[in-house]
Amino acid sequence: MNKSRIEAFSDGVIAIIITIMVLELKVPHQADIHTLLPLVPVFLSYVLSFIMIGIYWNNHHHMFHAVSHVRGGVLWANLHLLFWLSLTPFTTAWMGENHIESVPVAVYGFVLMMCGIAYYILARSLIRLEGANSAIAEAFGRDRKGKISVLIYAVAVALAFVSPWIAIACYVGVAMIWLVPDRRVERVLLSARAGHAPEA
Amino acid sequence: MNKSRIEAFSDGVIAIIITIMVLELKVPHQADIHTLLPLVPVFLSYVLSFIMIGIYWNNHHHMFHAVSHVRGGVLWANLHLLFWLSLTPFTTAWMGENHIESVPVAVYGFVLMMCGIAYYILARSLIRLEGANSAIAEAFGRDRKGKISVLIYAVAVALAFVSPWIAIACYVGVAMIWLVPDRRVERVLLSARAGHAPEA
Amino acid sequence: MNKSRIEAFSDGVIAIIITIMVLELKVPHQADIHTLLPLVPVFLSYVLSFIMIGIYWNNHHHMFHAVSHVRGGVLWANLHLLFWLSLTPFTTAWMGENHIESVPVAVYGFVLMMCGIAYYILARSLIRLEGANSAIAEAFGRDRKGKISVLIYAVAVALAFVSPWIAIACYVGVAMIWLVPDRRVERVLLSARAGHAPEA
Amino acid sequence: MNKSRIEAFSDGVIAIIITIMVLELKVPHQADIHTLLPLVPVFLSYVLSFIMIGIYWNNHHHMFHAVSHVRGGVLWANLHLLFWLSLTPFTTAWMGENHIESVPVAVYGFVLMMCGIAYYILARSLIRLEGANSAIAEAFGRDRKGKISVLIYAVAVALAFVSPWIAIACYVGVAMIWLVPDRRVERVLLSARAGHAPEA
Repeated sequence: MNKSRIEAFSDGVIAIIITIMVLELKVPHQADIHTLLPLVPVFLSYVLSFIMIGIYWNNHHHMFHAVSHVRGGVLWANLHLLFWLSLTPFTTAWMGENHIESVPVAVYGFVLMMCGIAYYILARSLIRLEGANSAIAEAFGRDRKGKISVLIYAVAVALAFVSPWIAIACYVGVAMIWLVPDRRVERVLLSARAGHAPEA
Repeated sequence: MNKSRIEAFSDGVIAIIITIMVLELKVPHQADIHTLLPLVPVFLSYVLSFIMIGIYWNNHHHMFHAVSHVRGGVLWANLHLLFWLSLTPFTTAWMGENHIESVPVAVYGFVLMMCGIAYYILARSLIRLEGANSAIAEAFGRDRKGKISVLIYAVAVALAFVSPWIAIACYVGVAMIWLVPDRRVERVLLSARAGHAPEA
Repeated sequence: MNKSRIEAFSDGVIAIIITIMVLELKVPHQADIHTLLPLVPVFLSYVLSFIMIGIYWNNHHHMFHAVSHVRGGVLWANLHLLFWLSLTPFTTAWMGENHIESVPVAVYGFVLMMCGIAYYILARSLIRLEGANSAIAEAFGRDRKGKISVLIYAVAVALAFVSPWIAIACYVGVAMIWLVPDRRVERVLLSARAGHAPEA
Repeated sequence: MNKSRIEAFSDGVIAIIITIMVLELKVPHQADIHTLLPLVPVFLSYVLSFIMIGIYWNNHHHMFHAVSHVRGGVLWANLHLLFWLSLTPFTTAWMGENHIESVPVAVYGFVLMMCGIAYYILARSLIRLEGANSAIAEAFGRDRKGKISVLIYAVAVALAFVSPWIAIACYVGVAMIWLVPDRRVERVLLSARAGHAPEA
């Protein structure tokens, strides 16, 4: 089965998720610059989630680029990922509106962790379909980056009850791992993977 | 006429439907975990509808995959299906907000039933276009699964006035029929169709 | 320049327009069936607009199907059409919420009239690009159907101040012209065009 | 890497941005024509932003048309542009609701300026990828139009505190530069670029 429609549908859903988050930036009823102040945490939550969803779109793009066809199970693994991603606008808004408190920050991290797990399941279902010697299997490798991300999220959810800011720092850290192409950072975190092109 | 644009348009509409439902998860104004409690039925309604819309997208994908071209009547049969699907966010939110009461649960089932009928009409219009020996005609077969689903919905709408939970169980049951690839479950429900590849 | 991206962008915008209209069906806070009653005019407005937007998507689909390439001016003529279509959710909601009163009904018709004019301009810009002997020029013909629609809208806007229901009847009439493939209806309205395949 | 998916995703995001802005036209609760009056500045802000986003889509379309492939850095430069564009619905609504006051008008211009800068970065990242003799490098040229636009925005943001209307005039002026194909206007503003096909 052709992969173009699953790509188009995922693009559509991710495009909507990344865009409707901005609707949580409620328009102030005064023209004063001070009325923007309470929006700052909402805005920063939006920036963080925009980058997170951007990373997922980016990785999703690379993943399906390395794939030649799809089947029923992949469609559902993909919908499962889109489901968890679709909860991000809610958790982003809740975290932002409450000025970074423990419970919303933990729930935010929990949804990100589930996205990470769903992404892992999707990758596995594609590798099963394409075979252990396929381009996707090689690109995905042992996926230390993905596993470490899920682990950091799990720890961050617990740490959110100590201090929400530590959890936030963890989320920013995960974003960094995927964004920064600095090999040394990767080498410290992933040790053995040097010289191996990651999928992001 | 080429089928790619009807697929793209349907993907867009379904992607929006499946995503805007999450907007009904109204962000609580406190950071307390207890403020999530009243959202639980809204969330569960969302999960159910996400799966339902996912099944439709999946089936729509398979259906058009088996089709080589489209014509005017098909465009309208497709828009008719999208119309009923577009009412799902409304019925989902109404059902969720009212903590599973009879009328909203019945209306929810009614819209699903109309989606099922619209899907059947769309399949018929495609088969008429492609011919009785076409891939789509064979894949669609006698469509016992689709007919049974519509029947269950009709019964569930009536049963919602006895107990909304029975109706909910029916809806979950229909989702199961389409999701679970367990042949025995299918064999019990569909008896004669064994050995015949269903379109979902 | 390739036409696929202008089609994809138009599909996206039209898909969003047709779907966000449903957000105006505000979820009632009770589970009673009577709470749906005030939604009936909103719902009927939604049905009418869904059909109208559906007709535009259908015609847009056919129009670009007959076209081989596009240029700068066409992109703007297309955006102009999308602009007027994008106002439909607003006029639909205003008309529906006020239970069919003169001013909202007239404004609703005015926006539809502007959509009709914008569609005409888009068709002209495509014909200018493709030439008088092109498939698009032949399919579009003298466009009596389009011109009559715009005329009926103009009359309906005025009549809305006599009775909003007459205006509504006019809008439904225009939808009929485009929907019903009954040649006799067309022959009465369009007289000379018999035997000439219309673009819808 | 293929460019079709980055185009599709950008089309989706831009289609949503351009359409959700209309949701800020809050439906009045009366049917009176006077209830539309307070919406006039919101409507005019919408028209201006629709044209601005339309220009970006148009230029984005032309830019990627001249490009044959993309790479990781381009995906992020593109997401960076989409991020700033995604803030337009917020700034448009804030400016419109407050009837053109200094701070919202300045913030509106600031976001447009950041869009202009992000567009420039995206163009540079594409030129770096394709080479100095590529079609994109030639079409983009020295990009006087883009640089002048950013400069005008920067000046307009400051002038908004003198008079918001001067700033608005600047924004309309920038839209004119990109819309009006009148060579004389361009020649006055861009002097040396005559005979050189601009990308918009």
